[in-house]
Formats: sequence, structure tokens, C-alpha cells
Amino acid sequence: MLEQLKEEVFQANLELPRQGLIKYTWGNVSAMDRESGLFVIKPSGVSYETMKASDMVVVDLDGNVVEGEMRPSSDTPTHAVLYKHYSEIGGIVHTHSTWATIWAQAGLDVPVMGTTHADTFYGSIPCARFLTQEEIDRGYEAATGNVIIETFEQRGIDIMAVPGVLLKGHGPFTWGNDAKSAVMNSVVLDEVSKMNLFARDLNHFAEELPQGILDKHYLRKHGKDAYYGQK
Amino acid sequence: MLEQLKEEVFQANLELPRQGLIKYTWGNVSAMDRESGLFVIKPSGVSYETMKASDMVVVDLDGNVVEGEMRPSSDTPTHAVLYKHYSEIGGIVHTHSTWATIWAQAGLDVPVMGTTHADTFYGSIPCARFLTQEEIDRGYEAATGNVIIETFEQRGIDIMAVPGVLLKGHGPFTWGNDAKSAVMNSVVLDEVSKMNLFARDLNHFAEELPQGILDKHYLRKHGKDAYYGQK
Amino acid sequence: MLEQLKEEVFQANLELPRQGLIKYTWGNVSAMDRESGLFVIKPSGVSYETMKASDMVVVDLDGNVVEGEMRPSSDTPTHAVLYKHYSEIGGIVHTHSTWATIWAQAGLDVPVMGTTHADTFYGSIPCARFLTQEEIDRGYEAATGNVIIETFEQRGIDIMAVPGVLLKGHGPFTWGNDAKSAVMNSVVLDEVSKMNLFARDLNHFAEELPQGILDKHYLRKHGKDAYYGQK
Amino acid sequence: MLEQLKEEVFQANLELPRQGLIKYTWGNVSAMDRESGLFVIKPSGVSYETMKASDMVVVDLDGNVVEGEMRPSSDTPTHAVLYKHYSEIGGIVHTHSTWATIWAQAGLDVPVMGTTHADTFYGSIPCARFLTQEEIDRGYEAATGNVIIETFEQRGIDIMAVPGVLLKGHGPFTWGNDAKSAVMNSVVLDEVSKMNLFARDLNHFAEELPQGILDKHYLRKHGKDAYYGQK
Repeated sequence: MLEQLKEEVFQANLELPRQGLIKYTWGNVSAMDRESGLFVIKPSGVSYETMKASDMVVVDLDGNVVEGEMRPSSDTPTHAVLYKHYSEIGGIVHTHSTWATIWAQAGLDVPVMGTTHADTFYGSIPCARFLTQEEIDRGYEAATGNVIIETFEQRGIDIMAVPGVLLKGHGPFTWGNDAKSAVMNSVVLDEVSKMNLFARDLNHFAEELPQGILDKHYLRKHGKDAYYGQK
Repeated sequence: MLEQLKEEVFQANLELPRQGLIKYTWGNVSAMDRESGLFVIKPSGVSYETMKASDMVVVDLDGNVVEGEMRPSSDTPTHAVLYKHYSEIGGIVHTHSTWATIWAQAGLDVPVMGTTHADTFYGSIPCARFLTQEEIDRGYEAATGNVIIETFEQRGIDIMAVPGVLLKGHGPFTWGNDAKSAVMNSVVLDEVSKMNLFARDLNHFAEELPQGILDKHYLRKHGKDAYYGQK
Repeated sequence: MLEQLKEEVFQANLELPRQGLIKYTWGNVSAMDRESGLFVIKPSGVSYETMKASDMVVVDLDGNVVEGEMRPSSDTPTHAVLYKHYSEIGGIVHTHSTWATIWAQAGLDVPVMGTTHADTFYGSIPCARFLTQEEIDRGYEAATGNVIIETFEQRGIDIMAVPGVLLKGHGPFTWGNDAKSAVMNSVVLDEVSKMNLFARDLNHFAEELPQGILDKHYLRKHGKDAYYGQK
Repeated sequence: MLEQLKEEVFQANLELPRQGLIKYTWGNVSAMDRESGLFVIKPSGVSYETMKASDMVVVDLDGNVVEGEMRPSSDTPTHAVLYKHYSEIGGIVHTHSTWATIWAQAGLDVPVMGTTHADTFYGSIPCARFLTQEEIDRGYEAATGNVIIETFEQRGIDIMAVPGVLLKGHGPFTWGNDAKSAVMNSVVLDEVSKMNLFARDLNHFAEELPQGILDKHYLRKHGKDAYYGQK
């Protein structure tokens, strides 16, 4: 069942330690198959050294396991809520990558301070609020998905133009068309989190990128007039 | 004698440089065999490149060598004091890992600022006081174990819920059910030390994690209602 | 066509990830053949893992592709403008390397604070201004080349004595006699950016290097009286 | 001639990039043979990838090449001055390692803030003054050696108890009984430079290590009552 997608999700999970985004099992990647309405996700707490593609778990949009002998990631309900609400999302990544997590712990949005950011994220990366005790009690992981939706809707942010979020006191989620691009967005988010922290440290009055340069960099890589990469 | 435990302790020691926690021989791991009342520890100052499992030294709870041709780690009395006082501890690690040592040198407890911390440590990681001259003179390494006990008892901290401590001006000790989990706790401690330093640097007013989220993260991984990982 | 130069440019591009200067495809190296008036540059957005020397693109000084089946780097017009204006330049590198980009985002020149800097750059590395909206609209990449020329001419800096620049809010360009030395200059720029940031952080009153030591270090490696390296 | 010492010096030079202390050829290691009054040093500006043990150059205490087809390191006169003045020194290392160089650029002594420092250096690591223009003109590299001697003599520091120095605006020199221990001292100096910078950053009021703990840590590893390591 969904063997190719399992392989993609497996490979995308392996990319996390290779890119220095996680230690041990502190991360999870999933990918969606819109045709069947099912998604594939990493099992919970399994060592990356022994994990196999066939260990990936198939889950429906209510978070029920459809195939697989292992428990899916404990964050599965967050992934399910996002796939259900946003039909454009094809892959999701959660990590505790160092520099993005630092911004999450600081409780701050990551502002657009450079073109490295603008090449991938068309605006600040928002930091979602803490969950309330009631939300935690009712179902922490699903509530995490809901607070992401709330953040993007209240602020009117296009989910695919800014494919990432920080959860306050926790860490980042990123997404994309597929598992691979979602991982790439996590790499970019961590790197710009590092750059922006030290740029602000070096010059407290450092300006944000002018809108014209943000437009130029984002739009030369994304959308119908893009001219970056091979056709 | 205790051949399997020697192999475990040897492997756990090798994990220290692999995880970037030590340079040269600046660390030591031990593990306890409760049945015999003996523990196994790394020899002192031996290069990790030439060290073998059979070089591990067997020691009793008074710190006397029971088997082995090499001198045990100079920190052996600290390990002995902790194993003797806390029957729950199965493995102990000492390093001078960069970021935890920075907090130790700053003389500060590591506060709970995120879920990376909460997943492993159920509260702040305490920084123990400097030893007095009299304690140093009477036996530095044993006194180090005693000041750890004093710190946890005076503050009423559960040793297994917060499996680590900073020694002021020195560096961290961590422990766990076995050598492997003690090493993992050292990795987590170093990483949260790094994250928390820069989160505070980025936002001097960054809040500590709310109690409800600390409870949720710690308890979904630990205790009878845990649902993280495979059963 | 220009097969040896393609190989040099290919190898210089591979050196970028090896030196930790780039992630994914965020960088490009080119090299000039003054005899034919053509230069060779990396194709746009191609993975470094699958890229071959024969994928390098040959371009003329107006930025037209002369040979190659792939699109050249989207930054090709910047390279063309620089090669056209400065006949001394033989190789050019663009990256978003972490520490140089941090200074670019901070909008500050990198001052000469040590001999590591003085060994390669004979003065501060200037940070060019933001492009105006009109410049962006008329041709962003060519305008980027022009603002580099403007910066060096207005300040009267010798392009080969200070072989690098920061683009505000963007990142560094470096150059040299050939592709290899241009890469080396990128490595030095990133390292001195890191050192100078933390030196200033540690001591806000840290002095710049005295002119006599700057002269000594630069001139013992460069110019007719150099005595560093083998003859 | 001195074939074994050449091999030791060659291996010690290779250890510099492995320990992350240098990029390219920015470092040099030498070692002294007291019997012949000659020392062996790395050639100047030779790539570590192609360098061979037989490329090492034999030099006398006035800095004259006695054997070898390549030019010795441009810092050779500094090494010669130190070997001539201090008969205890058996090996010398110069690098521009990141964190030690940051303290050198900040122009500050590295204070003893932890036991990682105390295990190797029995006191602050001094930062020598800038050279005067006259000193630079008369012979920069020999003057560098002389300012190191001046620093240790004026402050009354034992050269073997504090086996390292920072040159203001430049970087560190370390030494030891042989090339290998001199390299190890460079590793320790860089690591404590990093730790102490961030400890001070985290807590501006962080205390220096009490004298009693400094004594304990230094003396359990050095001198006649040492009990660290194997006998």
C-alpha cells in the first residue's frame, strides 16, 4: 500500500539527521496521497539507524491507522488536522532544529531580514501562541494543528507562500508540495533563524528587507514568472 | 566478570565523541550491576582510539578496584557516592560538553524554556554550589557526589525526574536507568543548554514553559500513561 | 569548448559545500577565459550530487549562452557585469554563507580586526547599499553588478586588494585570479565575519588592527616583496 | 636527518585540520631536538592534502635552514626565539583557531572560569600587546617571539604552567613537551575560549574559579602528586 510514498517519507526522514536538524528520534516527516485520502508517517520513537521504509505507517485524515504494525508518530493528529484543512499541503515536517526552536522559545516571529529568507518564505514566519490548559486537556496534538490554522487565518497568511510556523516554547513545523520540499523548508527555516538572530545581535537597528527585494527574490523562484532553476 | 556490562559501558563511552560531547578523554561513563553491588567504569586518561571493552574497570561501592589492570577514572568516587545513595540509578555520565559547561561556568540553573527540555527533564536542571576548601581537601571527588545529593535533597527534586546536574565552574553529570540513557540525557542537556542560552539572548523576557505544557510533554513520554514510542 | 575551465569551475563549485559555505544549490562559481572573452558558470538550481563538469554553461560578456543545454545561474548577469568592467578578475563566487550573510543583513562593513583578515583583504570589506525599486525593475542581477562597481569606485577601493563585497540584506560576492582563489576568499570572508562578530560581542571597545600590522600581514603574502609560501 | 621528529611534526600538523583548528594552511607546528640544537617545522603555504613528512624543514636556533628543499613556515623566527629562550619547550603550535583568535582580537586575557581550563592551564592565558612600528620594521616574526617572552617575564608566569599566549589582533601560540602536547594545548585553549565567551555572555557576573579548585584540578593532572591517567 502506497509503497512509493513510504519510500519517499522514509528517505525524507533520513534527511533530517543528515541535515543536522535532529538528534535521536526528535522529528517526523509525513506525506499525503490525495487520491486515497491517506497519509504516510514515521513510526514513533524508532531509531533512525534501524528504521526501514516498510516501518512507515499509513493513516487516514482522522488519525486512524490503516496499515502498519507500529504506532505512528505521537504528533500524527497535528499532521492529520493540517492535511484535512489545507488541500494544497503534500508533505509535513516537525523537528526541534536548534535555531528555529530558539526563536520558538523566544516566542517571536522570524522577520524577513535577507534574501535567503525571501527565496523561500514570502513574509515573516509566525510564532503561534501557547495552547491553553483546556486545549491541552482536550487533545494536545490536534489542538496544535488547530492553533496553526488559527494563526494563519487570523493573520491572513497564505499557507503555501509561508510554508512554516513556530509553536511557542516548542519548535517548528514546515510543509510543502511533498515530503522532500517540506524538509528543504525546514533547512531554510533553521538557517534563516540562525542568520537573523546574529544579524540582530550585531546590529540592533538592522532593517527588514525592503518589499521590492522580497518580491523580486520570492517571485523569481515561485509563481508563473519564475526564472530560477531548469524549466 | 560483568562482560556484557563492560561492553555496554565501552559502547556508551564511544558514543560521547560521536555525539560531539567530548574532546580527547574528557569524559567518563559507568554502569551499575545491582545484583553484585559492583559498577563498571572507563579507565583514566586512556585514548578513545585504542580503548577496548576489556579495559573497563570493575569497582565496588566504596570505590575499590575489584577487577582490571588499569586505574579507573579519577572521578570514580563521585560515581560510587551516587550509586550508593540512589538505588534507582543504573548509569552515570560526566562530560565537559560545551553548552552545559557554559551554564555551569555561569553558575546558573538551566530553566525549562521549551518542550525539548520537558521531554526529558521534569523541571530546571540545578547548578550545585562550589565545594569549600575543606571539602576539597578531605576528598574532592567524593565531595562532588555529596554536593549533588545535597542539591537534590535541599530542593526536593526527584533524582530520576531531573536526571542531571551542573557542578558550578565545572560541568554536567547526568544519569539514567542504564549507561545508554545516561548518555542520551547528556545529549539533551547540552542541546537545551545551547537553545536556552540563545533564546534568552534573543529575548531577555522569554517566558518559561507553562506548567501544563511541561506536564504534557514529560508525561506523554514518562510514567504509566506515556504514549510515545513503541510499547 | 573550454573543457579545462569547465572542470575548474565544476571543482570550485563542489568546494562550496565541502567548505560549509552553502546548503543545497545556494551558490555559484564562474571563471573567465580572457582570450575568447567567454566565461563558464554553474547551471541554475542543479543538485550538487548529480551535477557534472559538462553541465557547466559557457556565456559571453553580455550574458548570452554560447554553449550548454542548461540555463546558467540566475545570477549570471552579475558575473558578466563584473568581468566586463574589471579585466583583472578571473573567477567569481556568490554564496549565502552564514557569517558573511549575517554582516550583510546587519548592513555593516566588516572591519579589519585581525591578521586573518589582513592576510587576504587589505582593508574593510564594504557593504553595498540596497538597490532602488527602479534598479530592481530594470534588471535586478545586472544592477547588482553595477552597485558593486559603484561601491568600489565611490570609496576608491582596489578591487584586487579587497576581493569581496557584501550586498545589503543578501550576501557576499568574492573574486580572484581564478575560480579556486575566489572560493578561498569566500572561506576567509566567512571566517573573519564570524571572528569579528564575536570579538565585538566580547569587547565592544575592541580596536581595529593598527595600519602597520595590516601592511605587514597583507604585504608579506601579496605583491613583489611577499615571502609567504613557496616561490 | 631527524626522520622520527619529522614524522611527529608532520602528524601533529595533520591533527590541526582534524581538530577543526585551521582552514587551508593557516597553522604551523614544530618540534625541537635538544641534542642537536635543531628543530623541525612545516614548510610555508603547502597544502595539507599533498604535504609529506619529508617536506618538513630542519632549522637551527638562529632560523637558518639546515636541511630541506622547501621554505620553512614564515613564522619560523618566532619558533626559534622561543626554543632558544626556553629550554623546557619541546613543541610549538601556531593557529588562527576561531575562538582563541576572537579573544586575541578582543585584546583580552582568557580568565580561568572553569575546570576545563584548570586541567591544562594554571592561570589566565595572557594576551600580549601589539608590536610597535619599530618592532615590525626590524623583524616582525622574531619580535613576535620576544613580545611573548616579555609578557611572561613581566607578569612572572611560568611558561610550562600556562603553555599558551594570545597575540593581540592575531591569534594563539601554544607549546608543550612535544608537538603532540602542544597541539592538545591548542585544542583546549580554543575550547575554553569558546566556553568562557558564552559564560560571560550568559552571566556578566560569572565568577572566576576559586583558587582551591584551580589548584585541585591542575595538580591532580600535573606535578609529582598527579593521579590522573595511567602511571
